[in-house]
Amino acid sequence: MLISLKINLQKRCLLQPQKPLLVGVSGGPDSLCLLDALWRMGFSLVVAHLDHQLRFASELEAETVRRAANERGLDFILGRQDVNAQAEELGLSIEEAAREARYRFLFAQAVHSGAQAVAVGHTADDQVETVLMHLLRGAGLSGLKGMAYRLSPNAWSLEIPLVRPLLGVWRQEVLEYIQEYNLTPVLDESNLDTRFYRNRLRRELIPYLEEYNPRLRQSIWRMADVLSGDHETLDMLIDSTWPICVRQEGAAFVEFEAAILRSQPTGMQRRLLRRGIDHLRPGLRDVDYESLARALKFLEAPSRSGQIDLIAGLRLSLDAGGLWLATWEGGLPPGDWPQIAEGEEQRLPLPGVALISGGWQIRSEILENLPADPARVWANADPYQAYLDLDQLQTTLHVRSRRPGDRFQPMGMGGHSIKISDFMINARLTRRARQDWPLVLSGDEIVWLPGFRLAHPYRIQETTRRWVRLELVNINP
Amino acid sequence: MLISLKINLQKRCLLQPQKPLLVGVSGGPDSLCLLDALWRMGFSLVVAHLDHQLRFASELEAETVRRAANERGLDFILGRQDVNAQAEELGLSIEEAAREARYRFLFAQAVHSGAQAVAVGHTADDQVETVLMHLLRGAGLSGLKGMAYRLSPNAWSLEIPLVRPLLGVWRQEVLEYIQEYNLTPVLDESNLDTRFYRNRLRRELIPYLEEYNPRLRQSIWRMADVLSGDHETLDMLIDSTWPICVRQEGAAFVEFEAAILRSQPTGMQRRLLRRGIDHLRPGLRDVDYESLARALKFLEAPSRSGQIDLIAGLRLSLDAGGLWLATWEGGLPPGDWPQIAEGEEQRLPLPGVALISGGWQIRSEILENLPADPARVWANADPYQAYLDLDQLQTTLHVRSRRPGDRFQPMGMGGHSIKISDFMINARLTRRARQDWPLVLSGDEIVWLPGFRLAHPYRIQETTRRWVRLELVNINP
Repeated sequence: MLISLKINLQKRCLLQPQKPLLVGVSGGPDSLCLLDALWRMGFSLVVAHLDHQLRFASELEAETVRRAANERGLDFILGRQDVNAQAEELGLSIEEAAREARYRFLFAQAVHSGAQAVAVGHTADDQVETVLMHLLRGAGLSGLKGMAYRLSPNAWSLEIPLVRPLLGVWRQEVLEYIQEYNLTPVLDESNLDTRFYRNRLRRELIPYLEEYNPRLRQSIWRMADVLSGDHETLDMLIDSTWPICVRQEGAAFVEFEAAILRSQPTGMQRRLLRRGIDHLRPGLRDVDYESLARALKFLEAPSRSGQIDLIAGLRLSLDAGGLWLATWEGGLPPGDWPQIAEGEEQRLPLPGVALISGGWQIRSEILENLPADPARVWANADPYQAYLDLDQLQTTLHVRSRRPGDRFQPMGMGGHSIKISDFMINARLTRRARQDWPLVLSGDEIVWLPGFRLAHPYRIQETTRRWVRLELVNINP
Repeated sequence: MLISLKINLQKRCLLQPQKPLLVGVSGGPDSLCLLDALWRMGFSLVVAHLDHQLRFASELEAETVRRAANERGLDFILGRQDVNAQAEELGLSIEEAAREARYRFLFAQAVHSGAQAVAVGHTADDQVETVLMHLLRGAGLSGLKGMAYRLSPNAWSLEIPLVRPLLGVWRQEVLEYIQEYNLTPVLDESNLDTRFYRNRLRRELIPYLEEYNPRLRQSIWRMADVLSGDHETLDMLIDSTWPICVRQEGAAFVEFEAAILRSQPTGMQRRLLRRGIDHLRPGLRDVDYESLARALKFLEAPSRSGQIDLIAGLRLSLDAGGLWLATWEGGLPPGDWPQIAEGEEQRLPLPGVALISGGWQIRSEILENLPADPARVWANADPYQAYLDLDQLQTTLHVRSRRPGDRFQPMGMGGHSIKISDFMINARLTRRARQDWPLVLSGDEIVWLPGFRLAHPYRIQETTRRWVRLELVNINP
């Protein structure tokens, strides 16, 4: 056992014997064996134990670990936490609360003692049980690959890795070791109560499955090992694909390039979305099949509303070729376009200026002569400028955002009138900008959709005598 | 059910309703349901049934399928095969032999009738059972992903796909369909005998596991669906990585670029080797964890012999930066270098020519004057040419391959004598070429290692009066 342990310590846990290493020791056989073996190999150890104050025997456990540390001349750190109270406070199960408290304690102590890593005593049997638990709830690769020999970053530290040197050692080998070196572990009573589900797995399910395959545990362990390699490969692939598929990301959103995401195989689409979800909801553990299936379906064929509620307060929307994954609370970035709030109305005298959001302005000027490039003027070729017949207009124009039922007659459509909202959609005006996009009106008539199209009745004609030029500009671009 | 079936037929099976489709129908509920549903959707069907002649009831089954086809006005093809006899002959289990015979029959008939695909009736329950069977034996992703809606190429055809339209339909839905449309399937008696293992899974294991997770079957099905996406992604990644990692491949070998293979993550190394094995042993189903682990270990730290036996008559060897995966029977490609068989000896007169393998020759000529570029001559700078002092040589030289104990004094090592085999290794002469590499001797003394180094005692000196030039050339490069 010691040989294979030594190999895993170097090659898979990447530990250096000279640097301090913090070992979490419950006092049970696994962690006591780990402590002793690391000590025999000459590791510079700090022993830590958290008294969960859950059981009558917890003081005895702490005492056992203290003695084990003292006998070997090792530093011992004891923590105490009323896990029962904390579980109640946080609404967690006792087991979850104990686990959280334990790891937080271990990593805090590791920082404190400058340890290279936190080592815990999970064995190959724990690995098999973990994989089977994930399997029973239908987890994907990230569950089936089981626990890692070395996990960094992890939920408790970005820098200090969590290592599991015994992950390739069977419980039977641990017990033999305990006997050979005459160690006296405490019996972890929690095996008999709180961790019921896992214990049922260990005592009933695995022996039952071994009737189908006597080497089931070895098979499952190896499967997990192979799958963890596959998982690592896919992770690296996502690393390299991410920047290709993502236009921009912020604390509250990720914008994917929808066309590129669509060109990826389904498995990659799922993983890229999954990673987006991880960015916005780092703690979220269970992203269910259905949610991702709905996301993939939406990507392929967006709903009419252009937006769906996804999972955990995240929404998905399609806009101008971008697939936005965003938190409901965070909102999307404002975008660099002219916007005027609903209900607001700006006067635009002739001549004059109306001030819009963020440095955007709409200016009007009256021209005495036909401008220099008449062809462009007649065609209204530049969408950020429009030439209008002054005599068709009221003396003051208005700028406001759209209202339900707004219509106009776009130039080039023979005077045909259409809904402004339909025109905006056809013009691919980005969804988020539509509602508050400024419109220029004369009385109740829309005369110009800035940045897009003039209204037909206000165009320059042969009979036009006085010209107005309207212009949409940004004074601090 | 029909709606989800329709979607899967188009999107996952990629079937076209106009083109003929061959359906394999056993007469049991699943395949009868498939037949009826495809017929109602207007598919152009050919119905095929293989009578395995295994059971008393087999004629009745064939008759049931014939009637189902006739009632719907569909072509019916009946095959007969004594599977018992074949199983005995091929040393297969009855079930394996029946499966092989059935698929071979179906694909032969599909070719015959110009069918776009062969459709079979596997259901979502079959999928779950398949995944659990793979799981119990510890299969990797390729097993855990389960069966595919569309499989092409497959073991029976490179062109005609095998499709499983019912893979997303539960057995319960099939039974409801059977009842709704008043179909009369035969009871597949084999459920009660030959397919014992699968049946035990269905009747005992799955209900037992459902005590842990009542939605187990759905969970496993979805897991397989997600994993099949991951598998596809990895397959595409291997497709693109393969040409980067592979120097050359033939029917009996694959040569990987060892350094590039080493730079890949473990999961990729495993998959690249696995694909190499698939190339050389296409039928091989079970490549065990241990074999791949040994291969990875060898790649990282080659054994002293430079070669290991791998699996299924394949060997792995490292040579000149190449990792060779090759069949024992096939041998490696000869390589493009001069070789002279062990025991053979060629005379090389002065002047004269010795003929070596494959267009290679060693020529000698006597020079009356010091050649044009004396610096290069003195240094013996071109390893394919050597200038020697004629007066140090016998009148006829010899060419032969190395023998145990051969030594020589390489130029530039101050007359120090070393074993020719050590020199070859240091010179990175490829392992496969070393044994039969030609040496030039005068009497018992090695005077030149062609392509590499002259022997010190035969070099040109101030006192040299007559010069010999030796040259290694390939007359048909």
